[in-house]
Amino acid sequence: MADNRVVVYKGPGEVAVEPIDYPKLEVPQEVADAMGMTVAAPHAVILKIVSTNICGSDQHMVRGRTTAPVGQTLGHEITGEVVEKGNDVQFINEGDICSVPFNIACGRCRNCNERLTGVCLNVNPARAGSAYGYVDMGGWVGGQAEYVMVPFADFNLLKFPDRDQALEKIKDLTMLSDIFPTGYHGAYCAGTTTGSTVYVAGAGPVGLAAAHSAQLLGAAVVIVGDLNDERLEQARSFGCETINVGDGGPIEEKINDILGVPEVDCAVDAVGFEASAKSGEEAPAVVLNQIQTITRAGGRLGIPGLYVTGDPGAPDEDAKEGTLKIRFGLGWAKSHFFYTGQCPVKKYNRGLMMSILHDKAQIAKAVNATVISLDDAPEGYKDFDKGAAKKYVIDPHGMIPA
Amino acid sequence: MADNRVVVYKGPGEVAVEPIDYPKLEVPQEVADAMGMTVAAPHAVILKIVSTNICGSDQHMVRGRTTAPVGQTLGHEITGEVVEKGNDVQFINEGDICSVPFNIACGRCRNCNERLTGVCLNVNPARAGSAYGYVDMGGWVGGQAEYVMVPFADFNLLKFPDRDQALEKIKDLTMLSDIFPTGYHGAYCAGTTTGSTVYVAGAGPVGLAAAHSAQLLGAAVVIVGDLNDERLEQARSFGCETINVGDGGPIEEKINDILGVPEVDCAVDAVGFEASAKSGEEAPAVVLNQIQTITRAGGRLGIPGLYVTGDPGAPDEDAKEGTLKIRFGLGWAKSHFFYTGQCPVKKYNRGLMMSILHDKAQIAKAVNATVISLDDAPEGYKDFDKGAAKKYVIDPHGMIPA
Amino acid sequence: MADNRVVVYKGPGEVAVEPIDYPKLEVPQEVADAMGMTVAAPHAVILKIVSTNICGSDQHMVRGRTTAPVGQTLGHEITGEVVEKGNDVQFINEGDICSVPFNIACGRCRNCNERLTGVCLNVNPARAGSAYGYVDMGGWVGGQAEYVMVPFADFNLLKFPDRDQALEKIKDLTMLSDIFPTGYHGAYCAGTTTGSTVYVAGAGPVGLAAAHSAQLLGAAVVIVGDLNDERLEQARSFGCETINVGDGGPIEEKINDILGVPEVDCAVDAVGFEASAKSGEEAPAVVLNQIQTITRAGGRLGIPGLYVTGDPGAPDEDAKEGTLKIRFGLGWAKSHFFYTGQCPVKKYNRGLMMSILHDKAQIAKAVNATVISLDDAPEGYKDFDKGAAKKYVIDPHGMIPA
Amino acid sequence: MADNRVVVYKGPGEVAVEPIDYPKLEVPQEVADAMGMTVAAPHAVILKIVSTNICGSDQHMVRGRTTAPVGQTLGHEITGEVVEKGNDVQFINEGDICSVPFNIACGRCRNCNERLTGVCLNVNPARAGSAYGYVDMGGWVGGQAEYVMVPFADFNLLKFPDRDQALEKIKDLTMLSDIFPTGYHGAYCAGTTTGSTVYVAGAGPVGLAAAHSAQLLGAAVVIVGDLNDERLEQARSFGCETINVGDGGPIEEKINDILGVPEVDCAVDAVGFEASAKSGEEAPAVVLNQIQTITRAGGRLGIPGLYVTGDPGAPDEDAKEGTLKIRFGLGWAKSHFFYTGQCPVKKYNRGLMMSILHDKAQIAKAVNATVISLDDAPEGYKDFDKGAAKKYVIDPHGMIPA
Repeated sequence: MADNRVVVYKGPGEVAVEPIDYPKLEVPQEVADAMGMTVAAPHAVILKIVSTNICGSDQHMVRGRTTAPVGQTLGHEITGEVVEKGNDVQFINEGDICSVPFNIACGRCRNCNERLTGVCLNVNPARAGSAYGYVDMGGWVGGQAEYVMVPFADFNLLKFPDRDQALEKIKDLTMLSDIFPTGYHGAYCAGTTTGSTVYVAGAGPVGLAAAHSAQLLGAAVVIVGDLNDERLEQARSFGCETINVGDGGPIEEKINDILGVPEVDCAVDAVGFEASAKSGEEAPAVVLNQIQTITRAGGRLGIPGLYVTGDPGAPDEDAKEGTLKIRFGLGWAKSHFFYTGQCPVKKYNRGLMMSILHDKAQIAKAVNATVISLDDAPEGYKDFDKGAAKKYVIDPHGMIPA
Repeated sequence: MADNRVVVYKGPGEVAVEPIDYPKLEVPQEVADAMGMTVAAPHAVILKIVSTNICGSDQHMVRGRTTAPVGQTLGHEITGEVVEKGNDVQFINEGDICSVPFNIACGRCRNCNERLTGVCLNVNPARAGSAYGYVDMGGWVGGQAEYVMVPFADFNLLKFPDRDQALEKIKDLTMLSDIFPTGYHGAYCAGTTTGSTVYVAGAGPVGLAAAHSAQLLGAAVVIVGDLNDERLEQARSFGCETINVGDGGPIEEKINDILGVPEVDCAVDAVGFEASAKSGEEAPAVVLNQIQTITRAGGRLGIPGLYVTGDPGAPDEDAKEGTLKIRFGLGWAKSHFFYTGQCPVKKYNRGLMMSILHDKAQIAKAVNATVISLDDAPEGYKDFDKGAAKKYVIDPHGMIPA
Repeated sequence: MADNRVVVYKGPGEVAVEPIDYPKLEVPQEVADAMGMTVAAPHAVILKIVSTNICGSDQHMVRGRTTAPVGQTLGHEITGEVVEKGNDVQFINEGDICSVPFNIACGRCRNCNERLTGVCLNVNPARAGSAYGYVDMGGWVGGQAEYVMVPFADFNLLKFPDRDQALEKIKDLTMLSDIFPTGYHGAYCAGTTTGSTVYVAGAGPVGLAAAHSAQLLGAAVVIVGDLNDERLEQARSFGCETINVGDGGPIEEKINDILGVPEVDCAVDAVGFEASAKSGEEAPAVVLNQIQTITRAGGRLGIPGLYVTGDPGAPDEDAKEGTLKIRFGLGWAKSHFFYTGQCPVKKYNRGLMMSILHDKAQIAKAVNATVISLDDAPEGYKDFDKGAAKKYVIDPHGMIPA
Repeated sequence: MADNRVVVYKGPGEVAVEPIDYPKLEVPQEVADAMGMTVAAPHAVILKIVSTNICGSDQHMVRGRTTAPVGQTLGHEITGEVVEKGNDVQFINEGDICSVPFNIACGRCRNCNERLTGVCLNVNPARAGSAYGYVDMGGWVGGQAEYVMVPFADFNLLKFPDRDQALEKIKDLTMLSDIFPTGYHGAYCAGTTTGSTVYVAGAGPVGLAAAHSAQLLGAAVVIVGDLNDERLEQARSFGCETINVGDGGPIEEKINDILGVPEVDCAVDAVGFEASAKSGEEAPAVVLNQIQTITRAGGRLGIPGLYVTGDPGAPDEDAKEGTLKIRFGLGWAKSHFFYTGQCPVKKYNRGLMMSILHDKAQIAKAVNATVISLDDAPEGYKDFDKGAAKKYVIDPHGMIPA
């Protein structure tokens, strides 16, 4: 009898909760072989999962837009309690409640040393960087589950200082594993500081997290753009201005209506390659081109939205290999800097935790955190895919206080 | 009778030296009108030009790849002696020999305050940023001439500390107006520091300047790629490794042959939109895609090579408006940062001047500075267009020591 | 009959409002002579002063702690309306309401180019850096007056976008000339960011501004220390924790009581050389030593509090020449970085203005801005010296709305 | 019979080579107890030492200027070959030749995460930061020995890419464990970049390393000051200007003689608390005050020279507790930034290794690396203390090629 359950991809549009073995203190064989590591992982812990969120990047797999095979386990936004640890885990103990950065990182390579944990060199045979429960990432088991193994635990885990306080604020703290740092990374790379005007493309959870992060970084005005009115309403609920990019005239005019100038200081692309044109069909470079249009000369573009190297379901041959038609001459004329890539969560999660614990950040409210059971995960995936203005937080053990 | 002569664009492939009025202490009427400035320019000086270089970006106009009208004056790489000054020029005096950043900048706007002089807000009605002798830049008269007017002179001019020393080192110092800082900006933005491995795409003068700058910044290895063997030979002359990107196999293999790994830490695009594929036809994104391929995850891309918003002579409709097919998914997967735009010369020129004056930099040698008379400028344009491994320095008054 | 009035130092403990000539578009003769400038200042404007604040650094002169002669004009925190301008003022117009950075800066020297406007090289024969109405600063006339001359106006002035809005928010905007940026500089240099714990030594206006700035920069907890309970009450009024450093045990224990650890991430010295020990006698290094004690290893110390090179009224010979007994070995063991000096106001004032205009910053409330007439300035000086928890804003023309 | 030998402090002025146990894969009991670690160290390796240098900071102990007890083992500049490893050492293998940063760091705490490995929180019960073979640092055994244990080896060790190449360049590579990065840290923190003028106080090995680092960082002029003519001669041997600070007039005049201005852009204090006045007696703040005098307004001070919290042998009561008389008002007036503390070696050692391997850095020549046997270590200590212009490299196993 299996001692663990996990959300699994079953084919386009379909996920299920299935039994799976209780995790061991071992790294995937393919990773160990490729990287010269031992399979035995004295650096690892087993976590009893307290909360684990459904992420927009899971949707890319579930929509069939990747090469994920049927049976792929899902889940990389994990918070949990340590229930077992290897004999080289020195500073984390059983009973500790910890946030797990979605980036799996060794803490021992050149990139980790340079704080580039999003592109760790030792955890994925296919390329730099890895994550739990993701296709082509080395086979680390997903964490939309009851239990999960976390390697290099002293390095990867962020321990919450107090167990009771952690459980009380878990709907906020659960966002530290991915979307809060990811949104923050976007706003930060875009140069947001005291008094900035900021445009965030996309009002999904990462966009809303970027918008709230821009507020924490001191933005004077945060403008969120999307095609989905319900999500824009969510953005307005915590003080953002909004633009429905599907309505009416050019976006620069709408920016001008809000700010009195047609440009912002900083822009964040929280949409990525599945961007759509007004008309609804896919237009993978539309957001990239938009943010060049509306960002001031000398401004910066934070691009946490995912762009991929291969997209089998793309509308054209170029997009299938991740090649997009970008109006790069425009950005160049404006001396734009473009910051791309996965957020290196460890660079930001401790500070954001402090903001939550001291009531400076209200990220759960900003993204409309909505708790569901593990059994309800398939339903959550469907609602999220339909554009629900909610961030689903799975509670596999019923540990989240009502 | 005219008291001044200047190089003028006469149609595709053709320039001539023509008479023009001696400059006045006045800004162009169109700039004054648009920006609310007075035409009278108490902040300006007249320079007797000591040296003025032919630049690759002049070639874009001369090849007919822009909307430059016949009659457009040319020249934005200017070094000269102050012969007249307005009554608000306080810290520069007649007789001073000075370098002129090609960026015209007011020193008084938000962008200048943030050191973004490449995108000054007050000198060009068409967009942020301007230059002497360039199409769509506000009508500032070019400096491949005998005399030129420089506005906001206290801000723009870099005074050389000693006149005799300046003339003695003029073939190096003349590079401070554009290509040395521009190349340096590329290498600096790419993150070059002590021990870096650096790839520079393009062995024209900016590429060679980027390569030499990478050496000054401490690179362990500098690799220059081009299709032109003569220019690659020039790169080898000062210690660079080279790759002929037109020969044989994939570039990553050639990098691997040199470094033992198929990637560099830092890459510089010193080519821009007129890039060519191996076969010779234009392929405007080929260099951008190449540098994503060969730069390590977490690396940075310095892109001083010019990309334009409009290119009437481009091979396809997209490129005509500056839209290129970029394999952006690849850079995103590697967390690349892209740094684009004109170099803000004032950020670097003083330090580079010190390096020249104290014999740490040999930029004239690196780019093969070749002195010609003003009358020989048309010939220089032609040779440069053919790919001569030379940087032409025009000496309008015979002031450059042999 | 004189057309202007200004606050003047009359001897220790005494100031008066006296008639003075209406300003001219001229720089002080001594500055012009030393720097090679013309006395005529086509770059200057005359301001009709809308508001001008009493500053703690004025008190150093008024207490007789400097070599300021009787007759020294006072005032360097100036906001005003342009009523006259020189013929090289291009981007500022009559009628504009502007904030004046207390640093006088030319915008044309190496230091201004590097954004180090606090140490401009062209405005003070005695040393780098200058200010209005201050001893040994080149003789620029003070701005606790009806009218004042501002040189290099295009560079120095920060124009408010809307006149009515500016007057409505003038009690906040008036703090942009000095204490808001100065406090922000302290918090920023100390490394304050999202989630930081910050200690601010001193609850005078600069300390309160530093504390509010730390909040804007995202601090999780801001702790303010002082000996004055009224000022600490003011700090609590906008959400700071406080410590009366004169009460009871060691400061690290009090920090521990608040944070659960005896150290903060970041510390700001907003006191300077007139610091006092618990017992009340002067102890010029006490704050510097305290912040080393309570700042974590690897932390940073922002030191906007004034330390001087000569202090004729100091308690001992060393302090008279600005030499203090500092426990430097402690800071060294903790790898502390120390950031000293005058705030370069132009680096921060635009962003802070945006924060005020968009209601993100409430600096007037934080420092308890209190409007008085020019005639009441002497009374204001006295109350402030007694430790009133107020920031006095002089309204020379009755322009400030009630 | 003991299987290892180590240099040991025997009392003021005296060291000896003594037998000691072969190291175990264990951390010191006192560290394990205080930090909650296991004594067993699966993260550790045993190194057969290839080279290990005598350092100026060892001298502080040997001169009796610390509380080091008789029997204290010495040595923190270690390069070696891995001969045994724990079962959680994943990426380092037996036979690898590696440089050991003198900072012992866990790679798992907040400070290590922020690259502040000089103040790791988990390796020293007494304070943040630790080192091998040093008093009050947690009892880690010194590495002027035949064998040594290195904890957290995957994190701490820098592996050289090729064994033969490493042995060939070992006299350069051995400097990566401490003085090359330490000198570089000083020059880097001081803001040295292309074209800078730099003053380095002290021509001992760290000063010479700082001077060579300043060259690598692009300095236009490097000036080294000391009282010891032999060491100044060494500085001149690789292109530095020099000043004997004991001769004649004020230092600013000598700077002026070299540069034409009495100030440098950047200054490095490579002397620390045992500084002497011209007359020879100790004057612990003399260098700190000097560098404030001669560094330009807006400049930065890199202070790798050691300042201590307790100095039992100091000339006065203040200095005994690390309190110095610093002319802080001067630095404040010039807006100086002071960067103190141990160098976090891991931030720099990889890049410097690349510079050595590609022949850009000649650090062995710059510091006059001089190889001696382990038995000659006591003699080396004596010569170094007398001011020999040499850096002693101990070769315990005769592995260094002649």
